[in-house]
Amino acid sequence: MSVRLVDRMDRAGEEASSQGFEALVIPPSPDLAYLTGYDPMPLERPTLLVVRPGEAPAMLVPELERPLASDAPAAAAIELVPWSDGSDPYARAARLLPDAGRVAVGDRLWASHLLGLQRALPGLTFEAASTVMARLRAVKDEDELAALRRAARGADESFRTICTMPFLGRREEEVAADLAHLLVHNGHSRAEFTIVASGPNAASPHHEPGSRTILPRDAVVMDFGGELGGYHSDTTRTVVVGEPPAGFERVYESVRRAQAAACEAVVPGISAQDIDRVARRIIEEAGFGARFIHRTGHGIGLEVHEPPYLVEGNDQTLEPGTTFSVEPGVYLEGEFGVRIEDIVAVTAQGVERLNRSTRELQVVG
Amino acid sequence: MSVRLVDRMDRAGEEASSQGFEALVIPPSPDLAYLTGYDPMPLERPTLLVVRPGEAPAMLVPELERPLASDAPAAAAIELVPWSDGSDPYARAARLLPDAGRVAVGDRLWASHLLGLQRALPGLTFEAASTVMARLRAVKDEDELAALRRAARGADESFRTICTMPFLGRREEEVAADLAHLLVHNGHSRAEFTIVASGPNAASPHHEPGSRTILPRDAVVMDFGGELGGYHSDTTRTVVVGEPPAGFERVYESVRRAQAAACEAVVPGISAQDIDRVARRIIEEAGFGARFIHRTGHGIGLEVHEPPYLVEGNDQTLEPGTTFSVEPGVYLEGEFGVRIEDIVAVTAQGVERLNRSTRELQVVG
Repeated sequence: MSVRLVDRMDRAGEEASSQGFEALVIPPSPDLAYLTGYDPMPLERPTLLVVRPGEAPAMLVPELERPLASDAPAAAAIELVPWSDGSDPYARAARLLPDAGRVAVGDRLWASHLLGLQRALPGLTFEAASTVMARLRAVKDEDELAALRRAARGADESFRTICTMPFLGRREEEVAADLAHLLVHNGHSRAEFTIVASGPNAASPHHEPGSRTILPRDAVVMDFGGELGGYHSDTTRTVVVGEPPAGFERVYESVRRAQAAACEAVVPGISAQDIDRVARRIIEEAGFGARFIHRTGHGIGLEVHEPPYLVEGNDQTLEPGTTFSVEPGVYLEGEFGVRIEDIVAVTAQGVERLNRSTRELQVVG
Repeated sequence: MSVRLVDRMDRAGEEASSQGFEALVIPPSPDLAYLTGYDPMPLERPTLLVVRPGEAPAMLVPELERPLASDAPAAAAIELVPWSDGSDPYARAARLLPDAGRVAVGDRLWASHLLGLQRALPGLTFEAASTVMARLRAVKDEDELAALRRAARGADESFRTICTMPFLGRREEEVAADLAHLLVHNGHSRAEFTIVASGPNAASPHHEPGSRTILPRDAVVMDFGGELGGYHSDTTRTVVVGEPPAGFERVYESVRRAQAAACEAVVPGISAQDIDRVARRIIEEAGFGARFIHRTGHGIGLEVHEPPYLVEGNDQTLEPGTTFSVEPGVYLEGEFGVRIEDIVAVTAQGVERLNRSTRELQVVG
């Protein structure tokens, strides 16, 4: 059995306790995979890991998934508590929990299950477990950093190759399919998202690539990533097809400078919001502040988006080992958009850039 | 814009109202796709459709996804309410909801979002929306039935082909990969699950196919399905490699008879639990009741598992157009398992079997 997983469950219990929680309740989710190595689908039948400080962990599991749960990497350290179809799983879960106090539930627990627990345990106060889990998961160990580096390298290599392939006259969805194949070719188990947003579509940050044909002078935002060994890549580059559209270069340069300055600002102990402020100030000074319509970045690891979020109001300080995206963008509706995104890690001295592909404007054909 | 979607939102509001709810709150999920045609990823940034009886629907959307939401099939009938990173989305959502009364939230809403709403709206009582949405979604229209038929045919064809391919000496995961390819070859957009559980592994209903090599006299349970046009297939067949193991045929025959009888029992107005009882009685009479460790079936449509659940205690009556699985199973730990599963639809007269591949025991090589 993995000593690392037992240690993680211990630390989760201690962190929950130090925050005044009586217990942690974790459903199938990246939190569960992190703590136990067990990663079943979240379903209507609840599976719930209960971690109580100073006690052995217990896991409520549907009877028909008991054999599966018994094979989980951390199973030897967990008491399995099966429940059968037709019985009340929330009543069974209640017997694993105290009657009163504060309990932290995994962010991704389905509302139907939380409501079931709230009914069964009216004396408990439920809060989101992200305050506990985010502290543990934000700081990556060497194995996790190695996986994130491999994923970032695969994304970089995919970007280099896609720049040599044709854009002009092809549909966004065709370029997106090429990107997906490249991610897998470059070591990912699977591609997870391949935004290809061309021309005016590039002004929509989460655009779904569609049938629009890419035209001369289009800006094309590509935001893509996949999964590799449980960890994720997430990179954005903006390219132009031949001559850039009018006004593009000033926008691109402001985003490029903002992204570079925000990356360079990373040092141990900086707050999440301070990195956002560095990027935002440069874009505001360039006159595009109102069109930078999202936060500067998000943590990345077992989830593509996870805490910490680089957003005004988040004064959490960042410790060595914390990995996140730095991705300012400017979006001019009806015209074009620009976004540049890299994954970085806080180091003991400053910052490690996991993505290394060029951020100079690339002209594609 | 789709008249069908507007009609669905109207009916959802009416159904919510008739159940005493002031509003429905629906996150990215199959419920949202059903009501609006909009199907973004559920994320840490909340997107919430609010349906209030007698009012136009509103949808809280992250500012950066506003362009995407504007392109949703039902967008013209929905007031989009954007919120920006750094602001409080739950406070914004609260302004779309009443201060008091009962509100139904989508089953898959993340706990972090439900807890945010509960904090912002302490006067509201939150309950699961499945009581509302399940009533609407259970009864499929002709387009939905056609998609489910196509998916079932693709699964049937995949089973016929896999029976002609080699099992003996191959690893479970190799047969699973073949099944995944066959599902796509037979019209699915993607394979979603391909359980291949051989020998003693077949006693684990949700076994993850692994590196076990399939041996002579193994029973092999294959439970597989994929997505086609937003709808799903889900079929199980149990085959044997050459001679069946000792005691297998009696078990197989009891499961086959239970599954056939449960399918034949389906008529409009039957209750979900009565179908479960028909299957369970036959398996109990054969002496294997204690080893039939799960419910008899589940609804299927936009989700692989959705209401109604065919389980003791569910006295919901089934109307024409309702589609669900019928899948009794018997699991003898350390020896073997048997499950047979088809998708069926309630018709005006009785039942339509969507899966038609043989349920006679197939011997593979």
